[in-house]
Amino acid sequence: MTQWNRETATAVRAAVAGGATTAARVAEDAIAAVAERDGTLHAFVDFDPRAARRSAKAAPAGPLSGVTVGVKDIIDAEGWPTQCNSPIYAGHRPDRDSAVVGLLRAAGATILGKTVTTEFAFAQPGPTVNPHHPGHTPGGSSSGSAAAVAARLVHVALGTQTGGSVTRPGSYCGVFSLKPSFGLVPREGVKPLSESLDTIGWYGRSVADLALVLSVFHREPVVPPPPRLRIALCLQPPWSAATGPMRTAVRKAARALERAGHIVGPFGHEAMLEPLHAAHDAIMSVDAARSLRLEKLHHEARLSARLRERIARGEAIAPADERAARRAADLARREFDLLAGSWDAILTAAAPGEAPETLASTGDAVFNKLWTLLGVPCVGIPAGRGPKGLPLGIQLVGRRLDDAALLAVASSVADILGAEA
Amino acid sequence: MTQWNRETATAVRAAVAGGATTAARVAEDAIAAVAERDGTLHAFVDFDPRAARRSAKAAPAGPLSGVTVGVKDIIDAEGWPTQCNSPIYAGHRPDRDSAVVGLLRAAGATILGKTVTTEFAFAQPGPTVNPHHPGHTPGGSSSGSAAAVAARLVHVALGTQTGGSVTRPGSYCGVFSLKPSFGLVPREGVKPLSESLDTIGWYGRSVADLALVLSVFHREPVVPPPPRLRIALCLQPPWSAATGPMRTAVRKAARALERAGHIVGPFGHEAMLEPLHAAHDAIMSVDAARSLRLEKLHHEARLSARLRERIARGEAIAPADERAARRAADLARREFDLLAGSWDAILTAAAPGEAPETLASTGDAVFNKLWTLLGVPCVGIPAGRGPKGLPLGIQLVGRRLDDAALLAVASSVADILGAEA
Repeated sequence: MTQWNRETATAVRAAVAGGATTAARVAEDAIAAVAERDGTLHAFVDFDPRAARRSAKAAPAGPLSGVTVGVKDIIDAEGWPTQCNSPIYAGHRPDRDSAVVGLLRAAGATILGKTVTTEFAFAQPGPTVNPHHPGHTPGGSSSGSAAAVAARLVHVALGTQTGGSVTRPGSYCGVFSLKPSFGLVPREGVKPLSESLDTIGWYGRSVADLALVLSVFHREPVVPPPPRLRIALCLQPPWSAATGPMRTAVRKAARALERAGHIVGPFGHEAMLEPLHAAHDAIMSVDAARSLRLEKLHHEARLSARLRERIARGEAIAPADERAARRAADLARREFDLLAGSWDAILTAAAPGEAPETLASTGDAVFNKLWTLLGVPCVGIPAGRGPKGLPLGIQLVGRRLDDAALLAVASSVADILGAEA
Repeated sequence: MTQWNRETATAVRAAVAGGATTAARVAEDAIAAVAERDGTLHAFVDFDPRAARRSAKAAPAGPLSGVTVGVKDIIDAEGWPTQCNSPIYAGHRPDRDSAVVGLLRAAGATILGKTVTTEFAFAQPGPTVNPHHPGHTPGGSSSGSAAAVAARLVHVALGTQTGGSVTRPGSYCGVFSLKPSFGLVPREGVKPLSESLDTIGWYGRSVADLALVLSVFHREPVVPPPPRLRIALCLQPPWSAATGPMRTAVRKAARALERAGHIVGPFGHEAMLEPLHAAHDAIMSVDAARSLRLEKLHHEARLSARLRERIARGEAIAPADERAARRAADLARREFDLLAGSWDAILTAAAPGEAPETLASTGDAVFNKLWTLLGVPCVGIPAGRGPKGLPLGIQLVGRRLDDAALLAVASSVADILGAEA
């Protein structure tokens, strides 16, 4: 008998449309998988099968019929608390859906439950472990969402990226991910960390599944990619942060694309990216201080030390320095927009390497921050395993608002690499 | 006996701190003023004196002690519905404060009630009339907030600006206004129209009152302005939209500043501003389509025709055109940042002229959109009356994130002009 939780979203949707199963039956398989697996994985927050069943029962027919969705616990979903992995929000129950959850529901999706986030989507980890090894981090801040998709508990799951919170956990957990262009997916009902950077994204088990979710938010039709792709290989700064196995994975991917007849050339503009790390750090810090000012005012002692430290850093940044950081971002967005037209995608590492062997940190977002600041779409693609047996991921970066085109390229690339989640 | 609602926020705060009155007594004066005046003005939505009293009673001592605040009805305030002037949100009660209201409350403010907005802060007017003439628009979308401050119903009131929704109503109603730099005031709990443009601002009856509210959000100390101001006179495109009386008001202000020993020179970069109108239009349209997608999906017939039209326009904009608009904005923000350092402020018109004689439209945001897109602070200053006896306003525009410095300049300018709200 088919275990529907183990199928892709695309397959489930077709099966529901064809009458082979129902959203309720698919949800039962997912609920059973959570019951079996989540006691050790800890991807979900306070899992409630009744709420999941209610969502499946209420789901209208639509492009996401039967598709189960995990929702990062900074994103409101009516029927569940939004607790942000902070004691300040313990038991907080929003009375309505966020825009993103409302749109997914309207498209037929089943909301399965809320997934573990780091504290306010910043650095303090939650309890989730890496599905491939319980001593390793799943990455963060969208820890539970990446782990839940990797462990076949849900078909897709929502995360948010401010630094590297969608792409990095996807790489560590070995699933496909999309961080869309900044601004494409409405953020109403999502607890902000940085209004300038926060971007809703998601995980899936194929590029087609990523595209299926995108179609809910973005009408641009997915067109076939050009037969001969132009791929820019970007050894993004600081490339010294990339481990040997990750360098090998990126170069192997580049060679496989060349062997398949595509053009792979050097990006060549790495120097332009370098100053963006400092700009990202300044913008994220001042924004976090603003977004969490009320929490700090009323509940400072209940914020983690590392979040308090980051807020203090943001408060100390002078307007002139913030202005310089925003100016650097404005310039880089514009330049990158013009440059990015020369390629179908940029190929680089999705993370420095395999998931670090710790649960006290969610790893390093060093290969993600630039792209978040630039507001460009990033597709994470699994690219085999490292020496510890944990997943490695590459990412393809596209031009702002060319998300649909980038997914078409990513589909070709994933086929060539034989990428599997 | 002092009618506390007729005093400035700064005076009320001092009186409460000195024991001359209490927040509860001030609130009673404001409640009485609403009862007396709002039956014809219609600045407030479903005014509830008990909710206002509860807020005054609960207010802690702080920099805004005794200060009464009107809150535009797209901004959540616990204890009041948020109805967005849309039947879709009739009776909708959020369970918690927006960040901005929470911060004002924590600073001691009394939330007096919710003020009328246009439908979702877009174009469809509410019932508010201009306090200076009931046949004329108060402007929009922050119609009730501007009118309530002008009519002495509250000391300050929150608005939001996506096109010209803070500065223009301030000009039409004859009050001081601040649209701060984009990103300075957190937007959590505010119904979005355009995530790229929406900016929370406020009205007051003096520049000092505007600065008092800013101090809640922004730590930068207000420093004395340079003794000799450098003011750039900007006949912003399309200057032909400025009425004769408005041109006269701007030129009179420029001459008064020169007579006071300050330097007034031409801005000289008007051509750089010209293409920003189209960029603003495109960005606002695509964003509105995204922000209101769920409302359209479930309640299309309950949206006004003009909002439906705007959403449809946004949906029809191709990614390449959106990208070009965003690129134009990125470039202009950066260039303006560099240019704006040459002056202490830019002087221009806050609106085309007096409030139009209609309640079917809220007037023209043509002199505000550019600055909203640039994300720069704008201070609106009353500048006398036009031939119909209605207020005219000028605005001073500053450099991004130099809000405190701009208010210091505005204070000097308001003194020289003898500006009164």
